[in-house]
Amino acid sequence: MNRKMVFSVIGKILLALAALLLLPTACALYYRENTVVPFLITIGISLVSGALLTFLCRTKNHVIFAKEGFAIVALTWIAASLVGALPFYLAGEIPSFIDAFFETVSGFTTTGASILPNVEAMSKGLLFWRSFTHWIGGMGVIVFVMMFTNFSDRSLHIMRAEMPGPIVGKLVPKAKDTARLLYIIYVVLTLVLIILLRLGGMPLFESVIHSFGTAGTGGFGIKSDSVASYSPYIQWVITVFMLLFGVNFNIYYLILIKRFKSAIRSTEMRTYFAIVGISTGIITANIFSSDIGFGKALRDAAFQVSSIITTTGYTTENFDLWPSLSKTVLVILMFIGACAGSTGGGFKVTRVIILFKMIKREFIKLLHPRSVRVIRFEGKPLDESTVSNTGSYLAVYTICFFAIFLAVSADGFDLETNFTAVASCFNNIGPGLSKVGPIENFSLYSPFSTFILSVAMLLGRLEIFPILLAAAPSTWSKRK
Amino acid sequence: MNRKMVFSVIGKILLALAALLLLPTACALYYRENTVVPFLITIGISLVSGALLTFLCRTKNHVIFAKEGFAIVALTWIAASLVGALPFYLAGEIPSFIDAFFETVSGFTTTGASILPNVEAMSKGLLFWRSFTHWIGGMGVIVFVMMFTNFSDRSLHIMRAEMPGPIVGKLVPKAKDTARLLYIIYVVLTLVLIILLRLGGMPLFESVIHSFGTAGTGGFGIKSDSVASYSPYIQWVITVFMLLFGVNFNIYYLILIKRFKSAIRSTEMRTYFAIVGISTGIITANIFSSDIGFGKALRDAAFQVSSIITTTGYTTENFDLWPSLSKTVLVILMFIGACAGSTGGGFKVTRVIILFKMIKREFIKLLHPRSVRVIRFEGKPLDESTVSNTGSYLAVYTICFFAIFLAVSADGFDLETNFTAVASCFNNIGPGLSKVGPIENFSLYSPFSTFILSVAMLLGRLEIFPILLAAAPSTWSKRK
Repeated sequence: MNRKMVFSVIGKILLALAALLLLPTACALYYRENTVVPFLITIGISLVSGALLTFLCRTKNHVIFAKEGFAIVALTWIAASLVGALPFYLAGEIPSFIDAFFETVSGFTTTGASILPNVEAMSKGLLFWRSFTHWIGGMGVIVFVMMFTNFSDRSLHIMRAEMPGPIVGKLVPKAKDTARLLYIIYVVLTLVLIILLRLGGMPLFESVIHSFGTAGTGGFGIKSDSVASYSPYIQWVITVFMLLFGVNFNIYYLILIKRFKSAIRSTEMRTYFAIVGISTGIITANIFSSDIGFGKALRDAAFQVSSIITTTGYTTENFDLWPSLSKTVLVILMFIGACAGSTGGGFKVTRVIILFKMIKREFIKLLHPRSVRVIRFEGKPLDESTVSNTGSYLAVYTICFFAIFLAVSADGFDLETNFTAVASCFNNIGPGLSKVGPIENFSLYSPFSTFILSVAMLLGRLEIFPILLAAAPSTWSKRK
Repeated sequence: MNRKMVFSVIGKILLALAALLLLPTACALYYRENTVVPFLITIGISLVSGALLTFLCRTKNHVIFAKEGFAIVALTWIAASLVGALPFYLAGEIPSFIDAFFETVSGFTTTGASILPNVEAMSKGLLFWRSFTHWIGGMGVIVFVMMFTNFSDRSLHIMRAEMPGPIVGKLVPKAKDTARLLYIIYVVLTLVLIILLRLGGMPLFESVIHSFGTAGTGGFGIKSDSVASYSPYIQWVITVFMLLFGVNFNIYYLILIKRFKSAIRSTEMRTYFAIVGISTGIITANIFSSDIGFGKALRDAAFQVSSIITTTGYTTENFDLWPSLSKTVLVILMFIGACAGSTGGGFKVTRVIILFKMIKREFIKLLHPRSVRVIRFEGKPLDESTVSNTGSYLAVYTICFFAIFLAVSADGFDLETNFTAVASCFNNIGPGLSKVGPIENFSLYSPFSTFILSVAMLLGRLEIFPILLAAAPSTWSKRK
């Protein structure tokens, strides 16, 4: 392990974070809030520690192997969350540091679960920072920094570790250019959303906040009832954009280079929209009654399905009061998640498709034991290591899920609360059911469980392996 | 597909079932109950249909390929459950046929979930039959028949499909002899249990019933409070024997041939007892209070842990009232299940171990992409196809679980009830939590959900693939 290099990269990330913190500081200044000083202190801490790490850990060996890649990703996210929590804590708006840490992890991991009982009471600067973490975390903290610095060519390891989904390739030959391209698509889509929300009469500040929350598939807003009080137009716009940000960004690249046919043929995208369509249909039929009418039933169903499958977590209705069937559909969508290579979390549609193909192959193998079959996906044969990786990912995902579920159950809440709280955090969604339902928050949990759920969010966002590898002592041995 | 041969085997099984039905008939005669006629009618139907199938589907081609093996296993279990349900229905003690089918499937699959609101009201002959299905189903219906008939040498396919667990080999060169050996161990252990229960003062009829329920890891009893009203001695005896029947029967074979060292070195057995020990420790500490005392806390914890991990389902306490942590431990044990090659259900300890090994290998592969590593288990390298089968099994297990969960949620009960009802049926346990808790029953579900849960029990007992393969039209095509 090249520890020096790892820490020097973390140093650079902290410097970048100091720069990013200037935006919420400006926001706090504009609204003349007294959170300016806490922001400046945080920037100071970030600058000094970043500079120290960069200076003390200078090294000429910049080669990033897989080990270093995972360590960088895990440590970056932990460091960014620790530093990012400071403004909330220093300003006194979140009095407990572990709660502030939870809120910040929830931001960067684009979960959107909150411990705030009253989000309306928070100052604008901190609200901006809270949602801005969604936007940064959505595409990846390091991928962002990668655009501006000279990472070595091996930095694809980092991108692989930070980007969601099993198959993340380079769109263009250089990792740096791929990162830039992805961010351009991301910025353009976010700007279009801001404009569309403004056209619907939403004030600029709120438009920006909700665009950050939608683009990062995060879910932080500014109201306790999420987006329930906005107009149907705004709710439909957010529905469409949540779905768009849940699509694999490769699709947008294909559209950019005018390969429309390839874009439209994508199995993953088609499956994703099919799941959304079927789920919306089931829930619409299930919640429809003459009282609420078809229009509202369809709008609420479409909104909630899009919000949960993309792991955004915005709500227009208290779906905890919906019939069991609808709630079960939503719980299942929590686990499926969005497309690989999108800003969404969960298990990912691609992986679900690969699982089905693995089962089909097992069927054939059971009937014809001597047959050898290659799994094909998106028209190409799938690398056998990707297939076995998907199986192992399901295994580690399931085991981590149950371990976290067991840990938080020590707090004594009911099974439905604990199960959906873990499902929500681990899949980076936001709301759960029962005591962590859409109109509730996560403040009920003990500090221990709050910490465990923060870890769950990090595990979910980084797809488990980087965090576990960084926690293994053998990763840190001096021997290369 | 050699359909003729498949149906001729089903015919033989029905003939064997007619013979097995003589035992409960004798019991009904002994107690002079009016269920004798329903039993005789059932025997008649079983005999006639069995004889017809055997006669009409005569064939000289007795070769059993994988396809035929799966079809035989799936159809056998469905046919046995349909015929086995007749006595309950004809006697009028279970007025709905779908309920009677559920109860019989629950018996054969050794689940032990019941739709009876008042088990005490049932006649002794039917109680005997109900528990006898556990005993037959525990080791396998076909494995039983296999001992007496001349199956071809390819019948290992059937044993593989019917015996639980990923790695079922022949203990001795001939499949028939292996079947006989397993049944001898099974019979001896059951007889020892009957004697030990009699020594504890339990009446003979009740001793036989509870020995059937324990040996098959089923869980049907004769009282609404399960075994709560029996003495601590009896509860401890049942605890120990539940655990013994949850051990891989290969271990007993190793002990028989005096290879004690190999028996004691078994990774699966050690892991199984470690899980039992740790879970019992957690629950004892969690439910202990000065009111109930350490002795009873330990006894209840040990009993419930053994009952759930072995998927038996007997209860001594209403664990639905226990604290969350204990309930979560039990829910997790529901999924782990017993050892492969035992009479228990669930995902199986062996598979859980293989999953951990898969994860470990993935770790190493992520750090050293070019490394090739073989997974070792019980001291031997594990066949790569067993590893990939375990991954695919987890995939199909998870997908089936969620599909069944979705289907039963249409009835509108709460998430905890539905989730644990499916977990309980799919893993062949018996009780769940909330509305299907230890002191409740499954009569609340609609006929549709009752049918779905019956299918869940069959899927769980036969480990999914045989049922799915038998349901696929391509399996039945004439082309070989």
